[in-house]
Amino acid sequence: MALLVIGGNAAGLSAASRARRLDPSLEIIVLEKGPVVSYGACGLPYLVEGRVREPQQLIVYTPEFFRKERNIQVRTGAKVVSVSHPKREVALESGERVRYDRLVVSTGARCDSMGIAGTSLPHVFTLHTLAHAERMRTFIRDQKPKRAVIVGAGYIGVEAADALRRHGLQVTILEQSKNVLLRSDDLIVSTVRKTLETHHVELRTGVAVKSIEADNVAGVPCEMVVISAGFRPNVEIAAEAGVELGRTGAIRTDEYMETNLRGVYTAGDCAEVTHLVTGRPTYIPLGTSANKAGRVAGANATGARERFPGIVGTSIVGIFGMAFATTGLSMEQAKAEGLSPVSARIEAQARPRYFQGKKTTVELVADRVTRRLLGGTVIGEEGAAGRIDVIATALHSKMRVDEFEQLDLAYSPPFATVWDPVLIAAQQLVKEI
Amino acid sequence: MALLVIGGNAAGLSAASRARRLDPSLEIIVLEKGPVVSYGACGLPYLVEGRVREPQQLIVYTPEFFRKERNIQVRTGAKVVSVSHPKREVALESGERVRYDRLVVSTGARCDSMGIAGTSLPHVFTLHTLAHAERMRTFIRDQKPKRAVIVGAGYIGVEAADALRRHGLQVTILEQSKNVLLRSDDLIVSTVRKTLETHHVELRTGVAVKSIEADNVAGVPCEMVVISAGFRPNVEIAAEAGVELGRTGAIRTDEYMETNLRGVYTAGDCAEVTHLVTGRPTYIPLGTSANKAGRVAGANATGARERFPGIVGTSIVGIFGMAFATTGLSMEQAKAEGLSPVSARIEAQARPRYFQGKKTTVELVADRVTRRLLGGTVIGEEGAAGRIDVIATALHSKMRVDEFEQLDLAYSPPFATVWDPVLIAAQQLVKEI
Repeated sequence: MALLVIGGNAAGLSAASRARRLDPSLEIIVLEKGPVVSYGACGLPYLVEGRVREPQQLIVYTPEFFRKERNIQVRTGAKVVSVSHPKREVALESGERVRYDRLVVSTGARCDSMGIAGTSLPHVFTLHTLAHAERMRTFIRDQKPKRAVIVGAGYIGVEAADALRRHGLQVTILEQSKNVLLRSDDLIVSTVRKTLETHHVELRTGVAVKSIEADNVAGVPCEMVVISAGFRPNVEIAAEAGVELGRTGAIRTDEYMETNLRGVYTAGDCAEVTHLVTGRPTYIPLGTSANKAGRVAGANATGARERFPGIVGTSIVGIFGMAFATTGLSMEQAKAEGLSPVSARIEAQARPRYFQGKKTTVELVADRVTRRLLGGTVIGEEGAAGRIDVIATALHSKMRVDEFEQLDLAYSPPFATVWDPVLIAAQQLVKEI
Repeated sequence: MALLVIGGNAAGLSAASRARRLDPSLEIIVLEKGPVVSYGACGLPYLVEGRVREPQQLIVYTPEFFRKERNIQVRTGAKVVSVSHPKREVALESGERVRYDRLVVSTGARCDSMGIAGTSLPHVFTLHTLAHAERMRTFIRDQKPKRAVIVGAGYIGVEAADALRRHGLQVTILEQSKNVLLRSDDLIVSTVRKTLETHHVELRTGVAVKSIEADNVAGVPCEMVVISAGFRPNVEIAAEAGVELGRTGAIRTDEYMETNLRGVYTAGDCAEVTHLVTGRPTYIPLGTSANKAGRVAGANATGARERFPGIVGTSIVGIFGMAFATTGLSMEQAKAEGLSPVSARIEAQARPRYFQGKKTTVELVADRVTRRLLGGTVIGEEGAAGRIDVIATALHSKMRVDEFEQLDLAYSPPFATVWDPVLIAAQQLVKEI
């Protein structure tokens, strides 16, 4: 029996490792098109920033580790160009063919240039792989650019803005839509904008970039451009092999992370997962769910029958010392799902003043009919991760706001206030619902 | 209609304030035996330490605030000595009688001297009221003691040790039992001991203090003694009036925070609450549940019918920069409940190394039969509050460890690792269960 995994990062290596633990005799091969595997992609902005000093610091495991410690064969520079499921084999760019019995497709995603002209100019970057981050770092060091334009106000876009500011660059973010961090709600958009402005990053929304010139983008002068838009799942090879895509454009799966082709599993940035709040497939490509779904895909590829229940859409981003965390649905997303959302927003001390506690903002959304919690946002300089995780845990449990209001959360002055901000928000929501 | 509240702190004032919001016409009187109301008792160690500079910083609201803003009459120095429920009146120490229609008993707790001789010596302190903390502060400033003995290794005991160390005193904690922070499990006991030792605080367990001498306690020389043991609910007045006590010795209530006497409600450090993991009454006197149960008592005293579901026993204490957080049941407590607990303990990075992330320890306990999560412990220098709150939220939902393992928690390098330590612990527990 041979398990073949396409893609050597979060989802693929989680799948391979889990499969090995459950089946010591399985032949396991991981094919990675790039030169390295198992790197923390979420750490790339910090490599550009300089906080991460060497690319090696972001590499968790090497191919040697997988061979020696886990008896997993990891091949880098092995680009799969097609899959023939009837023959149970894949073809590599080199012409080589590799057989499989079970296949895990974890081909990830890419930054698409979206038809923008000029993306191959030498001062234009994406920030999707370790090589990209290294190239950007070298460029900043050698060319000493003074001004940068970032295309796209998603996670990577704002993190890159932070990193470039720390190198002293003047930074402008151009975003095609009205969204920031993939959200259109006023709370996120206005607070991110304010934080960026405080740190002298200009954010212009509603600006469609058509082309990149040698010295400007859409009239904004710059010596450097970062494209952090057009994130697209790499589904082409799978789709050509007959793997069904979902409505999101990513690979459709069942709860066992199996595709429509028996024996072909998928996980990570190329795959859909179930959104536990809506109950429907969603495409939210993040490392956390890539790892979890990857483990399940790997287990089931060995013949196990594990379920990946899904996600609630939790994310957090930190820029200039401020955290922006969201989980579940925004008001707008909830309305689009046909729900009757009500929200409440409060600002409160994250800790007592005598512990230099900072203000934190919490917004909660619940459904007026079922009183079920639907989502939340936490913004602040401290404690945002823990608080969004409490809301996320409640979403997993389909908790009603009335139960949430009574949560027995930890309190002691160095850590919190006696009424935690999330509970104050819940009280407010109960009044308004 | 008159609502009378005995006790002007967390539970009592929460009850009074909530009653006012629900019933603008009710007459509301709060009787407080002490000189001040509404102070943050959990901040007292920080007043001794000096981080809180003035007692006023711990006072949240004044009687004037309650009169003007909430039309609540708050009387300080008004000590209730008896309750006659048939007559619906209480008697004050002054001889005055005050009528009521509905009564909230929020008489709190006290530090009992437990038959220890010498507790009235001038160098002996408890740390239960604002006056106590002020007296201790003055004593340290004026008498400049060099050595202190703390009797009791509960929350206040270890927090007092931290505060006194910051004043340069040599500190020894004497604890009668083998417990630390009210827990007997090795993880808490050994890590608290280690933290104390690192900061030159000696902890001696199994030492029963019979008497306090002018210059030593149980042979340990000292110029100052802090009694932080013998925490007892103030139930005598209520019990004499016919209010039933539970097996814990605190006042028994139903889920509406009503006692066996119709129209008499209770909440706070004098009352039991339901433990949501065991389903049975418990006595865990903390400010968080005092506030929540107080609100429910106040609401129901106005004729509402709200439930206080209960607590899961979450607590956190910070000493010398290290947090010790627990929720739910320990292994031993779970065994005593007749359950079949299994535990797993892991140590992991709270955040990536390149963000100077610190190690954190997580222990989870689940039941082998139902696979339900029963409790958890988080110890570390960062993120412990948020992580224990995630476990607490899962306990409220009676979540199984298999669901817990799949929680969609927030990840980004400044805040967490891609596998949060609580999820790593859950994976370990799933393997062992």
